[in-house]
Amino acid sequence: MTPPRPGPLARARLLTSPSVAPAVVREMERITGRPAETDLTTAPDGPFVCVGSVLPEALRTPDLLWFHSVNAGTDALLAAGPWPGGALLTRTVGRMGERIAQYTLAWILAECQSVPEHTAQHSRYEWRRLPSELAAGRTAVVHGTGRIGGAVAHLLRSCSLRTVGVSRTPRAVPPGFDRVVLAGSDEETAALAEARWVVSTLPLTGATEAYFDTARFTAMRGATFVNVGRGATVDMAALEAALHGGAVRRAVLDVLPDEPADPGDPVWRLPRTVITSHSAGITADEDVVADFGACWEAVREGRTPALAVDTGRGY
Amino acid sequence: MTPPRPGPLARARLLTSPSVAPAVVREMERITGRPAETDLTTAPDGPFVCVGSVLPEALRTPDLLWFHSVNAGTDALLAAGPWPGGALLTRTVGRMGERIAQYTLAWILAECQSVPEHTAQHSRYEWRRLPSELAAGRTAVVHGTGRIGGAVAHLLRSCSLRTVGVSRTPRAVPPGFDRVVLAGSDEETAALAEARWVVSTLPLTGATEAYFDTARFTAMRGATFVNVGRGATVDMAALEAALHGGAVRRAVLDVLPDEPADPGDPVWRLPRTVITSHSAGITADEDVVADFGACWEAVREGRTPALAVDTGRGY
Repeated sequence: MTPPRPGPLARARLLTSPSVAPAVVREMERITGRPAETDLTTAPDGPFVCVGSVLPEALRTPDLLWFHSVNAGTDALLAAGPWPGGALLTRTVGRMGERIAQYTLAWILAECQSVPEHTAQHSRYEWRRLPSELAAGRTAVVHGTGRIGGAVAHLLRSCSLRTVGVSRTPRAVPPGFDRVVLAGSDEETAALAEARWVVSTLPLTGATEAYFDTARFTAMRGATFVNVGRGATVDMAALEAALHGGAVRRAVLDVLPDEPADPGDPVWRLPRTVITSHSAGITADEDVVADFGACWEAVREGRTPALAVDTGRGY
Repeated sequence: MTPPRPGPLARARLLTSPSVAPAVVREMERITGRPAETDLTTAPDGPFVCVGSVLPEALRTPDLLWFHSVNAGTDALLAAGPWPGGALLTRTVGRMGERIAQYTLAWILAECQSVPEHTAQHSRYEWRRLPSELAAGRTAVVHGTGRIGGAVAHLLRSCSLRTVGVSRTPRAVPPGFDRVVLAGSDEETAALAEARWVVSTLPLTGATEAYFDTARFTAMRGATFVNVGRGATVDMAALEAALHGGAVRRAVLDVLPDEPADPGDPVWRLPRTVITSHSAGITADEDVVADFGACWEAVREGRTPALAVDTGRGY
């Protein structure tokens, strides 16, 4: 998590993955003042900085000073092998918090206002009043109290929902939350029972794999489960049982343990569930440029960027 | 708009429409301390108070002290004939502002997050990322700056939209609005051109019939039009032309000039339009009880209730 030393950074070469858009590459050349190279099959001689979504095996060398991920989630990067000692890892968050918060609110209100049902009625030319539900005053439990979870809670609270955060570590109540409970505590169980919505923004780490298990789902009393974190944080068999049993009212899944789901995947046939193809937190090109630029400025000044990833903890 | 005098009010009989739910009638008996009568076919001897949605011809007498409408819109009541001189008219608003605000935000976010498109993809077992749009920072123009329009603006502004109100009369900027422009002014035309969403909360009066005409629709530059007010405030032929021409991007119509629309009505085939069967501002039984109770308290104290309708102006 320490920034590269000035000497190696000054002479480092810039490697960008072929998947990075040309307009983004041009911006990175401008920011760093050096040409970008797009051959990632062999490590260059001497120190280098790399930008992309995956780190090829050939580049996992001590000469890698810094890898900037164009995505927010770095679980796949870190799972692909031991992280090269000393290399800084940064990520792109952009306006992802805002985007995921808006996605979450959109699906909460769509449920309250029967948006899919109205759309279906319209297609049948059917005039029929449908009931609605006021979201204000209901409780949303948000797992994860970091940047994304905080942005989700802040927006929901702006719409008068009560927000309870679930955190792995004891902490002061961050902005956006009415209160925070500890993961695994009796308070979490009580919050799940009280929740109208349970929203997970959890990253995938060793500690969060299959976090949403039978115990947690059966603690719910008709909550709608929204997953905007990582698919493998959910035990899908436990979710399916809870949907059938009614402990989970509905599920909105932006992420799945296995993505993309092919048409034969039984996940499509879960009751009262909608799957949204990992669309909630897409990073835009301008997000990548802005976040890389901010990291570059910090690194040049010898500071650890705010977007640095703790490669041991995984986020 | 003046409350009934204490003497006649004390001995007034209470008439409730057969359409009012029994539990609501019981609450009204408790509030007023007298039994309710449900025969509205003939006027009783002496002064009376009536609660319902329509005022039968037989009850349009000088003995009618006060009519409380179980609905918010009183246009149909007032259009049915001259209002009996001196009779107070009050209405039920309840949490309607909140309900309509949430409806509006739900459909705005559903558009931004492609909720109907994701639902359709799911039904085809199709995994495909869809783009989203951030509502924050975009402009919503809200026609009507009263209780309902104010509630809509307040909620949209909580989600970081910019809110421009359109008012018939010059007024200070009410809470929830970034600014207010005059209906019919060049500023309104400029606001329509800038709007991402145009939301109408207008009541139906002589001044608002076909308010949304060709000039207003063609002033828009791809706004989505949301009508939660009254259907007849819209020139439907002008809307159709604007949808075909692109000045209006989409339409979300909770109300229509002719309701309910039967399956053969061409309105169902307007492009990029969804009709939601007048579901946005349903008043719940508890709303009727609460608002009648508040009016009763004011009337008993000789005050004009906040929910009194100006029968000349129409709202």
